[in-house]
Amino acid sequence: MCRWLAYSGSPILLEDLLFKPAHSLIDQSLHARLGATTTNGDGFGVGWYGEGPTPAVFKSTEPAWNDRNLRELAAQVRSGLVFAHIRASTGTPVQQTNCHPFRHGDWLWMHNGAIGGFHQIKRELMLRVDPSLFADLEGSTDSEAFFFLALTLGLEDDPPTAVARAVGVIEDVGRRNGVEHPIQMTVATSDGTRVWGFRYSTEGRSRSLYYSTRVSALREQYPDNPVLHNVSDETRLVVSEPLGDLAGAWNEVPEASWGVIEAGQDELRPFTPRPPS
Amino acid sequence: MCRWLAYSGSPILLEDLLFKPAHSLIDQSLHARLGATTTNGDGFGVGWYGEGPTPAVFKSTEPAWNDRNLRELAAQVRSGLVFAHIRASTGTPVQQTNCHPFRHGDWLWMHNGAIGGFHQIKRELMLRVDPSLFADLEGSTDSEAFFFLALTLGLEDDPPTAVARAVGVIEDVGRRNGVEHPIQMTVATSDGTRVWGFRYSTEGRSRSLYYSTRVSALREQYPDNPVLHNVSDETRLVVSEPLGDLAGAWNEVPEASWGVIEAGQDELRPFTPRPPS
Amino acid sequence: MCRWLAYSGSPILLEDLLFKPAHSLIDQSLHARLGATTTNGDGFGVGWYGEGPTPAVFKSTEPAWNDRNLRELAAQVRSGLVFAHIRASTGTPVQQTNCHPFRHGDWLWMHNGAIGGFHQIKRELMLRVDPSLFADLEGSTDSEAFFFLALTLGLEDDPPTAVARAVGVIEDVGRRNGVEHPIQMTVATSDGTRVWGFRYSTEGRSRSLYYSTRVSALREQYPDNPVLHNVSDETRLVVSEPLGDLAGAWNEVPEASWGVIEAGQDELRPFTPRPPS
Amino acid sequence: MCRWLAYSGSPILLEDLLFKPAHSLIDQSLHARLGATTTNGDGFGVGWYGEGPTPAVFKSTEPAWNDRNLRELAAQVRSGLVFAHIRASTGTPVQQTNCHPFRHGDWLWMHNGAIGGFHQIKRELMLRVDPSLFADLEGSTDSEAFFFLALTLGLEDDPPTAVARAVGVIEDVGRRNGVEHPIQMTVATSDGTRVWGFRYSTEGRSRSLYYSTRVSALREQYPDNPVLHNVSDETRLVVSEPLGDLAGAWNEVPEASWGVIEAGQDELRPFTPRPPS
Repeated sequence: MCRWLAYSGSPILLEDLLFKPAHSLIDQSLHARLGATTTNGDGFGVGWYGEGPTPAVFKSTEPAWNDRNLRELAAQVRSGLVFAHIRASTGTPVQQTNCHPFRHGDWLWMHNGAIGGFHQIKRELMLRVDPSLFADLEGSTDSEAFFFLALTLGLEDDPPTAVARAVGVIEDVGRRNGVEHPIQMTVATSDGTRVWGFRYSTEGRSRSLYYSTRVSALREQYPDNPVLHNVSDETRLVVSEPLGDLAGAWNEVPEASWGVIEAGQDELRPFTPRPPS
Repeated sequence: MCRWLAYSGSPILLEDLLFKPAHSLIDQSLHARLGATTTNGDGFGVGWYGEGPTPAVFKSTEPAWNDRNLRELAAQVRSGLVFAHIRASTGTPVQQTNCHPFRHGDWLWMHNGAIGGFHQIKRELMLRVDPSLFADLEGSTDSEAFFFLALTLGLEDDPPTAVARAVGVIEDVGRRNGVEHPIQMTVATSDGTRVWGFRYSTEGRSRSLYYSTRVSALREQYPDNPVLHNVSDETRLVVSEPLGDLAGAWNEVPEASWGVIEAGQDELRPFTPRPPS
Repeated sequence: MCRWLAYSGSPILLEDLLFKPAHSLIDQSLHARLGATTTNGDGFGVGWYGEGPTPAVFKSTEPAWNDRNLRELAAQVRSGLVFAHIRASTGTPVQQTNCHPFRHGDWLWMHNGAIGGFHQIKRELMLRVDPSLFADLEGSTDSEAFFFLALTLGLEDDPPTAVARAVGVIEDVGRRNGVEHPIQMTVATSDGTRVWGFRYSTEGRSRSLYYSTRVSALREQYPDNPVLHNVSDETRLVVSEPLGDLAGAWNEVPEASWGVIEAGQDELRPFTPRPPS
Repeated sequence: MCRWLAYSGSPILLEDLLFKPAHSLIDQSLHARLGATTTNGDGFGVGWYGEGPTPAVFKSTEPAWNDRNLRELAAQVRSGLVFAHIRASTGTPVQQTNCHPFRHGDWLWMHNGAIGGFHQIKRELMLRVDPSLFADLEGSTDSEAFFFLALTLGLEDDPPTAVARAVGVIEDVGRRNGVEHPIQMTVATSDGTRVWGFRYSTEGRSRSLYYSTRVSALREQYPDNPVLHNVSDETRLVVSEPLGDLAGAWNEVPEASWGVIEAGQDELRPFTPRPPS
């Protein structure tokens, strides 16, 4: 089980995003409230769109709460599209290649949850990954396999459909192998322009996910943070757990739904897996 | 805040000691019950007397619960005198030289607690360390400074008196610098033959400490562990937290006291700091 | 490019094996003489048969020359069958799951060299791995894939034939994909009783490999090491580079050959890949 | 022995500075040519002046050549004043707090060389550090002690004089303790505006140091690097080893001298230690 955060909006210093909120993601690495585990100390990662042709990722196997380089970096890097993830391993090794967010070209991907019976169905899922992508898988997690399955099934063209098809494949393969609940997930993915978020689980009891619809809520949340008083009205956060206790600031993403954050109107729609035909 | 364990008795596989008990030290690294912090993920260390002229120490900055090398080692190493410590930093960096147990010659030392106002009085305490020992301090913790102060004041000759004198110095220096509660401690130290344990705090509300007086208690504690059915009656454990829930198995070390585990009769006596004259 | 060492014989302290020789493996991590790279600082691993049902492995991503835990461990662990490996990555990430020796059940495996064009043919090789073994691959190296291919092709029953068949598959797949020199290798593998060593490369210019046939040579090599004066006549070392300069102590394993070290007579025979039929 | 680089001039992407030159600092971490050691794999650090009130530092205990986070960071961070350092330990532990550059307030400091007999004279040198600074020392290196001694002796007001006084103290204390050659050094320090460089050793055979006087040299050095074609004429590099082989591009800093890089005219002057009076 893990916790994550996706930010889209006016460029912000990572420090203001990751460290300053009352119940910040870094704080959640030691004291998560809503997670299946309270400690998320099995590595972390931050991804952001900044300089250069691809997004940057910074990953560490140390707990986020005591990584000095993260703190240094966070005081220096400013970005308008940030992913951050703290990991609680469900069994795969604690190594940088197993830390989220995963990257492929312009795309970032992070996941909270698990593929049920992954050890048992890993090979079958890996065979569904496009041969040209296969050797680019670097780690051993279910989350990275899920990402590469989604890439295979069209993530770069139509994320909601690709994720629905990937989940369809996972549920199909899982069920044929006797797995009762093949998937448990909240997922965020981005191409650097838009951010898609997904909440779903086969059993219908998905990991928590919240979004901040109005930037005014955010401003109330951090009354002492001058940065947030300057952010645009388009600024949005999607988070595993609210970053503070202000009533009304956070909205739960409904069970089995997906949304997209983009310029103009955001969307929130039902999510339905597409079984392989 | 940290958690520790000291074992003295029949040679035991580290695995049986560190991983198998219901509420083992490794389990406490994620879920301590009695500590000031529930997570002790800022590194760990194991020390044991085995082959070779000095005790061995194995230290890591990773959380103990996901260190694979610790698990491998624990399945191979057998010793009759073991120290183990999981760390929750009170501010000093997470690095191997700040992990307990500390070693000097034949001696091991580990500490749970803190020297109050350490940043402020560090220099004055360091000046009290014997010049011939000064450059052997490798890390930056209060705990290592405390060890070297005790070494300076005669630890190798008379541990209870040396620790009483070291605490006397710390309280004296602290109070002269306006520190209200200069020390909070449980300490274990050994020369490879005997183990001394201390529980004390200036404010009279010390960190928890327990001992298992009767090996029969231990055997009841691990009914499924055949190893423990073969240990001698002299076998003892001293621990920050009981390793299981069996009523009657664990005895609290009284506030302000020290004890020694040795062949023959153990001792438990009041601890009184000795102010510098 | 890497360096490795396999030891079989009288139980020896790892320290005497890894640190004390003049041109020890640890020294080779900084100053290899015969390797394609002089520095082997991308992690290391030690495997040994000791207590417990499976061999132990200790791995680290730090350079071997400055790993304190390795030094501590080496002063404590004694074994009669030891593998040690220092890594110079050919591109795959520096993480513990990519460090040798690899382990499966009773078996250890380590490799110096590379599978040519591995990124390109990885998927095809992975499909040849037995489905029941597939999910146990933890890292991303060619060396681990090679091990699992050999396991699939009968390593546990007949190592020389299984390795010949695995190399046959690798050469076949490689050539069909336009790789000129599909394999470069020295390999050691063991079941805890015997040690098999292999030296081969498609191009016929294989990485260096040496063996010490007579323990008397070894004794001359370490005149000051009393331990070696007590080892049995069956004791053998197989190494990427001689551990010292004593003329006559080391014999080169001939190009394209394999050998086995076992009780009684050792064998040294030609190695010929077996193409898939 | 170590290698370092100081850059002052037009804002540059760290990647263009650290990775792209033919004989870049990262390349030197594996293959130094002029150093006492060819491998500098015992950690590294980068410091730069960017956002925020103090300079940033990024440090790692991994060899620079295989640190992925350094590569990610270098592709994102742009600065006009950069320090970078690769370490070859002379005995003190490999940990982040022993990596250069060291920071205090606005100041960065890095050092190549050693204080002779440091273990022996450490206490006496530490006593010369201002009591208000004492507890801020985080590591155990001679280089950090040297920095804090210079801070004590006025670094923030007059760097050349403060360093001359610090070296005077080190030579005085060393000689009184029978150390033949108390100091070997090249040092760089900065307040974010100017960069001071020093080359000196008691024995008169100092570690190598070079500077690029003319930006035109730099442009010739990296003909394919468009970034450098846009840098100002004030841009300067000071390096332990030339970053390429272009004749005439690099000038050796003379034995026993110091220089300052600043707006307007640079200076290069003799360096003479000032013994304590």
